[in-house]
Amino acid sequence: MNTPMKLAGLATLGASLFASLPAWAQDATAEAAEVVAAAPAAVDNAFIFNTLLFLIGGFLVFWMAAGFAMLEAGLVRSKNVTMQLTKNIALFAIASLMYWIVGYNLMYPGDAWTMTGYVGQLFSAKTIGGDPDLATGYSAGSDFFFQLMFCATTASIVSGTLAERIKLWPFLIFTVVLTGFLYPIEASWQWGGGWLSEAGFSDFAGSTLVHAAGGFAALSGALILGPRLGKYTKEGRVNPMPGSNLALATLGTFVLWLGWFGFNGASQLALGTEVDANAVSIIFANTNMAASAGAVVAMILSQLIYKKVDLTMVLNGALAGLVSITAGPLDPSLFGAVWIGGIGGVIVLVVVPLLDKLKIDDVVGAIPVHLVAGFWGTMAVPFYTDGTSFGMQFLGFAAIGIFMFVTSGIVWLVLKSTMGLRPTQEDEMMGLDKAELGLEAYPEFTKG
Amino acid sequence: MNTPMKLAGLATLGASLFASLPAWAQDATAEAAEVVAAAPAAVDNAFIFNTLLFLIGGFLVFWMAAGFAMLEAGLVRSKNVTMQLTKNIALFAIASLMYWIVGYNLMYPGDAWTMTGYVGQLFSAKTIGGDPDLATGYSAGSDFFFQLMFCATTASIVSGTLAERIKLWPFLIFTVVLTGFLYPIEASWQWGGGWLSEAGFSDFAGSTLVHAAGGFAALSGALILGPRLGKYTKEGRVNPMPGSNLALATLGTFVLWLGWFGFNGASQLALGTEVDANAVSIIFANTNMAASAGAVVAMILSQLIYKKVDLTMVLNGALAGLVSITAGPLDPSLFGAVWIGGIGGVIVLVVVPLLDKLKIDDVVGAIPVHLVAGFWGTMAVPFYTDGTSFGMQFLGFAAIGIFMFVTSGIVWLVLKSTMGLRPTQEDEMMGLDKAELGLEAYPEFTKG
Amino acid sequence: MNTPMKLAGLATLGASLFASLPAWAQDATAEAAEVVAAAPAAVDNAFIFNTLLFLIGGFLVFWMAAGFAMLEAGLVRSKNVTMQLTKNIALFAIASLMYWIVGYNLMYPGDAWTMTGYVGQLFSAKTIGGDPDLATGYSAGSDFFFQLMFCATTASIVSGTLAERIKLWPFLIFTVVLTGFLYPIEASWQWGGGWLSEAGFSDFAGSTLVHAAGGFAALSGALILGPRLGKYTKEGRVNPMPGSNLALATLGTFVLWLGWFGFNGASQLALGTEVDANAVSIIFANTNMAASAGAVVAMILSQLIYKKVDLTMVLNGALAGLVSITAGPLDPSLFGAVWIGGIGGVIVLVVVPLLDKLKIDDVVGAIPVHLVAGFWGTMAVPFYTDGTSFGMQFLGFAAIGIFMFVTSGIVWLVLKSTMGLRPTQEDEMMGLDKAELGLEAYPEFTKG
Repeated sequence: MNTPMKLAGLATLGASLFASLPAWAQDATAEAAEVVAAAPAAVDNAFIFNTLLFLIGGFLVFWMAAGFAMLEAGLVRSKNVTMQLTKNIALFAIASLMYWIVGYNLMYPGDAWTMTGYVGQLFSAKTIGGDPDLATGYSAGSDFFFQLMFCATTASIVSGTLAERIKLWPFLIFTVVLTGFLYPIEASWQWGGGWLSEAGFSDFAGSTLVHAAGGFAALSGALILGPRLGKYTKEGRVNPMPGSNLALATLGTFVLWLGWFGFNGASQLALGTEVDANAVSIIFANTNMAASAGAVVAMILSQLIYKKVDLTMVLNGALAGLVSITAGPLDPSLFGAVWIGGIGGVIVLVVVPLLDKLKIDDVVGAIPVHLVAGFWGTMAVPFYTDGTSFGMQFLGFAAIGIFMFVTSGIVWLVLKSTMGLRPTQEDEMMGLDKAELGLEAYPEFTKG
Repeated sequence: MNTPMKLAGLATLGASLFASLPAWAQDATAEAAEVVAAAPAAVDNAFIFNTLLFLIGGFLVFWMAAGFAMLEAGLVRSKNVTMQLTKNIALFAIASLMYWIVGYNLMYPGDAWTMTGYVGQLFSAKTIGGDPDLATGYSAGSDFFFQLMFCATTASIVSGTLAERIKLWPFLIFTVVLTGFLYPIEASWQWGGGWLSEAGFSDFAGSTLVHAAGGFAALSGALILGPRLGKYTKEGRVNPMPGSNLALATLGTFVLWLGWFGFNGASQLALGTEVDANAVSIIFANTNMAASAGAVVAMILSQLIYKKVDLTMVLNGALAGLVSITAGPLDPSLFGAVWIGGIGGVIVLVVVPLLDKLKIDDVVGAIPVHLVAGFWGTMAVPFYTDGTSFGMQFLGFAAIGIFMFVTSGIVWLVLKSTMGLRPTQEDEMMGLDKAELGLEAYPEFTKG
Repeated sequence: MNTPMKLAGLATLGASLFASLPAWAQDATAEAAEVVAAAPAAVDNAFIFNTLLFLIGGFLVFWMAAGFAMLEAGLVRSKNVTMQLTKNIALFAIASLMYWIVGYNLMYPGDAWTMTGYVGQLFSAKTIGGDPDLATGYSAGSDFFFQLMFCATTASIVSGTLAERIKLWPFLIFTVVLTGFLYPIEASWQWGGGWLSEAGFSDFAGSTLVHAAGGFAALSGALILGPRLGKYTKEGRVNPMPGSNLALATLGTFVLWLGWFGFNGASQLALGTEVDANAVSIIFANTNMAASAGAVVAMILSQLIYKKVDLTMVLNGALAGLVSITAGPLDPSLFGAVWIGGIGGVIVLVVVPLLDKLKIDDVVGAIPVHLVAGFWGTMAVPFYTDGTSFGMQFLGFAAIGIFMFVTSGIVWLVLKSTMGLRPTQEDEMMGLDKAELGLEAYPEFTKG
């Protein structure tokens, strides 16, 4: 305080004295001012920190694409592994292109929120070059990079549920629509400054906007596609179809857990002040606690219910814990993160068998993990975040759920009635790797 | 210098002139001062840099949990892979919860180093919310996040040694005690400002506090548990039980190597000055050199001794190099890092067969890598770090070793005499995956 | 502007008033100036940001070593997996040591660009300790760490092409020469301030200097080594030898993609200004678009040409897209990155079968991906980067290509005529894992 007061006093004093200076002193002052003005402007460190957060967060969320690929490849039978890998790398690449061509501008219409401006922006691909716009506080390229990863994540969720029984190209065409249009539209309602954000909905990093949205797209697909051949017998028995590589599935879960630090942490959108750095730290810690609680709860419950620990339940418990904390990772205490994430673990143990009873075949458990835990995470926000309400949270979830379920369903039905969604029964029995791709993932390992 | 001199001159001048100003000028000065005082305070960039270092370091060390999981899953036989994966993800989740509930406060008692305060802090779970405390220089949440990862690493070390022959739940209960109590207590002796740090012991990132500590817990377990069935025949022959997936083991080693940059680098605990940034850089480079030297030395020695290169020795050589440099990664030259790490590689080639001679069954080689190389790394500190002595280093290592070996041993013995540690011989022969978990990791790959 | 002008005015004013002060005020001013001068110097945040960029970029490029290991281990037959893993971890460790002992000083001769100085620097291992040199703008240790990773990458490229038919030790000796001498010499022509950089060649992150250089070393090796036994029949048929683990190959590709953000992004070499942060962001986004376009183009082309999508083509398409954008990732628009990367995908589909026609056996497709796409990326620079020309780009590529091809060829021929390159036919048939290493990667999985 002392120093600014003195400087301010001097500034005022100087201004009043300047007029009374002799001409030679006024000239010298002007010269000195020119020198100072020509010196390089001070660097805006906040701009760099914010940009760096987006870049680090972005590459961590990119890594989640690999996590989904490994998780899903590990949980399908070996005869469909090549297909699952192909879908996962292709969906990421398609998401990158579609989000660039259409999605980003659709999601952030900016001044074009009028309908004509909105539609006019369609297919005006995002550009990022040129000098940085310091006023935004971060590099446009880093924001694009980061937001694009969220779009791709939404698509990754769908591929797991529908595994082992959907042909490659209809899945990829659905991905084109999802990443270019469906996700950007619903996400713009909140993150693009649309009606949900104005109404007071709160979804910090996307329990609803990303995870439940992807889950609803997967659910409508699962209903229209039907279960895998032989999954549910006529006598009502559930035929277990164990994953071919649990090491890969566990690796995928660790990768997702790691990537989630970027997913939630960089959704703070700023690192340039002490308060922001502190917020990102709280988010990292809470994200980790929620995942840990989800895993432990799922482990204990699987022991209690089935008398043995089920690794796939533990993995999905961790993921459900992560999804649960995603809507509000900043405001809860560590204890809050633990119980919110722990309930995510309960959800896995309850919903996985429930889906089987409903004969909804969700190969990797994406619906409990992303849709149902996404619902729970969204509804848990008001426990810790001021200015939110259960009613508004429910409304936002329902609006996005209905939109995604209906629009996805229409796309799936159109694809079904045109090019068809499912391979032939023979192809499905043989496995999509041999039948559709002609390339086995493990040609030397599998029996027969 | 010119500018501060001028400013200081002006400040003194201004103070003396202020009193002589007319009233109107004093008023204007006061107004200007208010404006300046209302401006946002300058951002403490060091706080942000330090916090960022903890967050990046923390997520890299988190990644080591995945590395241990892959390394161990690759080095056990396929019939025990699901179990090894389950243990690894469960132990991380348990470590998170226990370190939050008990461990962190136990490890950093702060003002509560009196016995009553110390005990009083038990079970007062760590909190991290609220405004950042700028005085500490970093966000409390980032510190908790980072330190928690070290606790989990200690537990990861144990699971590898005891693989393929310990039941899930006693192992997890041991993990509860280890991560909630044993590790925090011994680590507080040094990093919590306890008696070892006051006595002059030096362990920069934990060759002793983390690696040897975990190694001693593993050793006491291995002695109490005994070797795997059939590992050592009555005739004194060692029965090789090769790992089921060396690609996974190699991946795990690369992951650990990567994570170690965070483990050692962020143990500098600061990034906010040029000197700190330079120190973190030196640590990164030294860590890499030590790992490389350990790998190359192990490779050459395995060629000389066994006439063929043994990949598992190369992997463990790299890891032993990493452990060796961990006690003092900042002070050695690159050459220092090379020879210190290289001796880590020698240790692997000497100790692995030695353990077999002693019939101590260490499935993944964690005892040579973490305990013995941890000893070596601790003893190597005085070669480069001023103010350290071989005697004090030995004392610190011995104190922590005895503490961990004895307390761990007591816990193992209590578990053995209550719930039992080992599965039945039939279950062990069948493999823990089928027997205890009912879930195979590779149901379609393995013969028979 | 206002504030500096006022301050400058005051400074001038103060200087003129200082002389007229009474003695007591001059004394007080001097005292105040001393206090100010004794205060800690302002921290150079740019130094920290630049250093941090090298460290983050460096650990991401380190991770690429794991990516190459997984990609190659996944694309060879299971009988050679242990060998491929061994080569990959060993080559990284050797690169670290050789780049430290010789390479770094050879590549950055600094003031020693005269021939005597140049040669005099040989074998004067790089040192990094002591206080940071603020004048360079970054920590010497972080630069060494980052540059070393590029050297290792060059070696990683070679191992894939020559897989399944080269003995371990000649390969490792070649790696010694490559990482200690060949790479540093050719890279110094551009990045060490040598003749290519002075002539106006432009290769931002190393399409030519790293990728094509590695590709030429691989090509000369492939020609001298010959194809795998049975790869090309006498009747001119190409015998497919499918990779043993496509999940691993896909993981490796994702790892490489992730690491490439560090490879290209940190090649900006600075993060300390808004313009640099913006540039790194643009590079991240462009790198991602090029990879995505390469993958999608390869996917569509493989469907059109072969009537089925080939996952290995998609993976290599993504990698070729990455190599293509590496020579100039900053200047193109996102659209530019897309078409440049997309042509990378075309290259894969054209060159992979072409090599088979030429009976050049490139096990993982490293020649199309790194050499040919590296050529394309180098030639594409003038489309977007001012001051570059197609002629100069071609000249630079040709100079480095010829140098690497000839010197590598000499080394391969010397190794062939002394210790021999290939295992016996029996050993190659049996697989190098059993024959040379005595250790199978998947002892329980593979048939027979």
